[in-house]
Amino acid sequence: MNVISLLTDFGDKDNFVGVMKAVILSINPQAKIIDISHNINPQDIIAAGFLLKNSFRYFPSNTVHLVVVDPGVGTKRRPILVRTKDYYFVGPDNGVLSLALEDEVIQAIFEITQDRYFLKPVSDTFHGRDIFAPVAAYLSLGRKSENFGKRISSIKQLNFPKPRRLKNKLKGKIIYIDHFGNLITNITKDIFTHFVGDYGFKMCIAGKEITKISHSYLEGKKNEPLAIFGSFGNLEISLPKACAKEYLSADKATPIEIIKTDRKI
Amino acid sequence: MNVISLLTDFGDKDNFVGVMKAVILSINPQAKIIDISHNINPQDIIAAGFLLKNSFRYFPSNTVHLVVVDPGVGTKRRPILVRTKDYYFVGPDNGVLSLALEDEVIQAIFEITQDRYFLKPVSDTFHGRDIFAPVAAYLSLGRKSENFGKRISSIKQLNFPKPRRLKNKLKGKIIYIDHFGNLITNITKDIFTHFVGDYGFKMCIAGKEITKISHSYLEGKKNEPLAIFGSFGNLEISLPKACAKEYLSADKATPIEIIKTDRKI
Amino acid sequence: MNVISLLTDFGDKDNFVGVMKAVILSINPQAKIIDISHNINPQDIIAAGFLLKNSFRYFPSNTVHLVVVDPGVGTKRRPILVRTKDYYFVGPDNGVLSLALEDEVIQAIFEITQDRYFLKPVSDTFHGRDIFAPVAAYLSLGRKSENFGKRISSIKQLNFPKPRRLKNKLKGKIIYIDHFGNLITNITKDIFTHFVGDYGFKMCIAGKEITKISHSYLEGKKNEPLAIFGSFGNLEISLPKACAKEYLSADKATPIEIIKTDRKI
Repeated sequence: MNVISLLTDFGDKDNFVGVMKAVILSINPQAKIIDISHNINPQDIIAAGFLLKNSFRYFPSNTVHLVVVDPGVGTKRRPILVRTKDYYFVGPDNGVLSLALEDEVIQAIFEITQDRYFLKPVSDTFHGRDIFAPVAAYLSLGRKSENFGKRISSIKQLNFPKPRRLKNKLKGKIIYIDHFGNLITNITKDIFTHFVGDYGFKMCIAGKEITKISHSYLEGKKNEPLAIFGSFGNLEISLPKACAKEYLSADKATPIEIIKTDRKI
Repeated sequence: MNVISLLTDFGDKDNFVGVMKAVILSINPQAKIIDISHNINPQDIIAAGFLLKNSFRYFPSNTVHLVVVDPGVGTKRRPILVRTKDYYFVGPDNGVLSLALEDEVIQAIFEITQDRYFLKPVSDTFHGRDIFAPVAAYLSLGRKSENFGKRISSIKQLNFPKPRRLKNKLKGKIIYIDHFGNLITNITKDIFTHFVGDYGFKMCIAGKEITKISHSYLEGKKNEPLAIFGSFGNLEISLPKACAKEYLSADKATPIEIIKTDRKI
Repeated sequence: MNVISLLTDFGDKDNFVGVMKAVILSINPQAKIIDISHNINPQDIIAAGFLLKNSFRYFPSNTVHLVVVDPGVGTKRRPILVRTKDYYFVGPDNGVLSLALEDEVIQAIFEITQDRYFLKPVSDTFHGRDIFAPVAAYLSLGRKSENFGKRISSIKQLNFPKPRRLKNKLKGKIIYIDHFGNLITNITKDIFTHFVGDYGFKMCIAGKEITKISHSYLEGKKNEPLAIFGSFGNLEISLPKACAKEYLSADKATPIEIIKTDRKI
């Protein structure tokens, strides 16, 4: 139980991430720390929640997932610790953990209050270093979650946009854009398959139509957007050897519509 | 004694940092390497010195702090090794280590000259790989610092700007800007408290006035800059949910003035 | 045999690299993973091949070098594993491994076909996670390379531009530009020395002339480009305390000519 994953919006210019790792290693010299990302947009709780949801299951059991996207640091938002069947999650109670936890069996939730585990003096601005990193480190040493605070019954939920169904239309939107400019929608493979069944379909995004699902980013012609179920498990819009975001002038929240045709295929 | 911290201006595009780590692991397979930052501006010795000063104490005792911000590589600037009560520091003698060492009890300083520890042939341009990484790796294995060269008595000092006091004014400046656009001044909490005492104050920066110290980045209104003692221990100017650097058109060296009022508070 | 190097074009914004590391640690908890780079330009197989060639030898013997620059993921390009005297190389058969392998004694090449090692279901878009990371992890555990697939006899070669000699001229080009804006040519020290012998020379690049080899990035005057054999072992064009790329408006593929004079020196 030595793995700690780290997901923040701290960027890679400052010493914030390095200092958190130093604090962790000072407490648990055997900790293995894996970065999920530190380069989501500042304070983008939705992007962090989405990446966490799509990452946590690949880690070994008992990994401590430490998330510090924390615009409310220094306010009354609670620091929390969630124990599930397979993992621990540590972070601020601002919804950032909620998407991942939808898929997990929660065993207990704690508000972190036991300041004997904190780095003193606790600063107003960097609870990642002073509260969250030490708690994650002690957890990774095997300290029981009951030690860190008092049980609470629920956490804040993120308002994550779900696709809407209207008769023969499924209305989704772009929720994440990856490094390559692929446009990731909020339409999962399950939702898509259930909606379309064995009928034909067309998709409309940014004035373009797509009528099939591809199986490689290289399928199709230049400047012809394609749709593919990417590694997030969601429908992605991509462009062969190019950047779909730029070509389609699309961005987060750009709508996409799936229209079911009358014909079975 | 297996932890090595790494602070460079090598960026994250090339293979420079990876190669240094490969060299370290080839010598000490047990080394745990923690990145402080590789994304300070090229050759910005002051930023590197400032980050080192604000990071080194969070690491376990006996950590080897390896700093390669080295515009003078290939010239006669000396490679040095400094042993303090708690840490080792390795890097070029261009002042980059001096800020951190102000706070440490120095036990011995060495010019690194023993080329039997170097990677051969030593290149003209990459002493990080050929000299500094191997020396740090052998130190982390427990090799005594006396082995690496000859004792010297002093190192180059960085010309770091200190705030100046003029009657009822304290004149400081922005010395670092973090990833979020927070403006970090050279006014530490100690300097501020000692100057203000129990009198009121106002701060002027970029044409704006601030009259109190906040305790969260979210305090106050939109487009109202706030002052806070941030995680560096220094006075920072920030903007709720926005980027102070942009809003105030401020940059490194932008001046800030604290004016003490006549009234006690 | 626990070291795995990682070289991708995945950037540092998404969770792709973190997830590959999670997959590796789930299989081999003792693996030590070193990043070479994740920030080469998307799908730039030549840059990745060049960085790999200039990195792999600094790693301990038996390191598994894992390269995922893979525009053809989901097409019929083969996933391969190459065993050399000192290392293992894992990646797509698109030429990205070929530059490094020019310098190695190849012992065996395998097409990776044994899907019992894969993460299921194998996605269309992320073989880094589903195929390459698990294979690298099992290799690092000591699993024999024969287990992963069937022997093949050759791999795809990269079309890497070599300098051409025309009488008293050597015509090269810029093949890589580092973080500092130094322009790295395809002229190695060996090629240069062999061509020039003990004659004088001048170099022409972007309308400027250079007539000597420098030994530090600081040699010479402001706005005077200098030539130096950099850490890649290749001729580099640099500018003292400034960015040669910008000043010379040079880019990848910008030509450079070495002209040998009549006079011995």
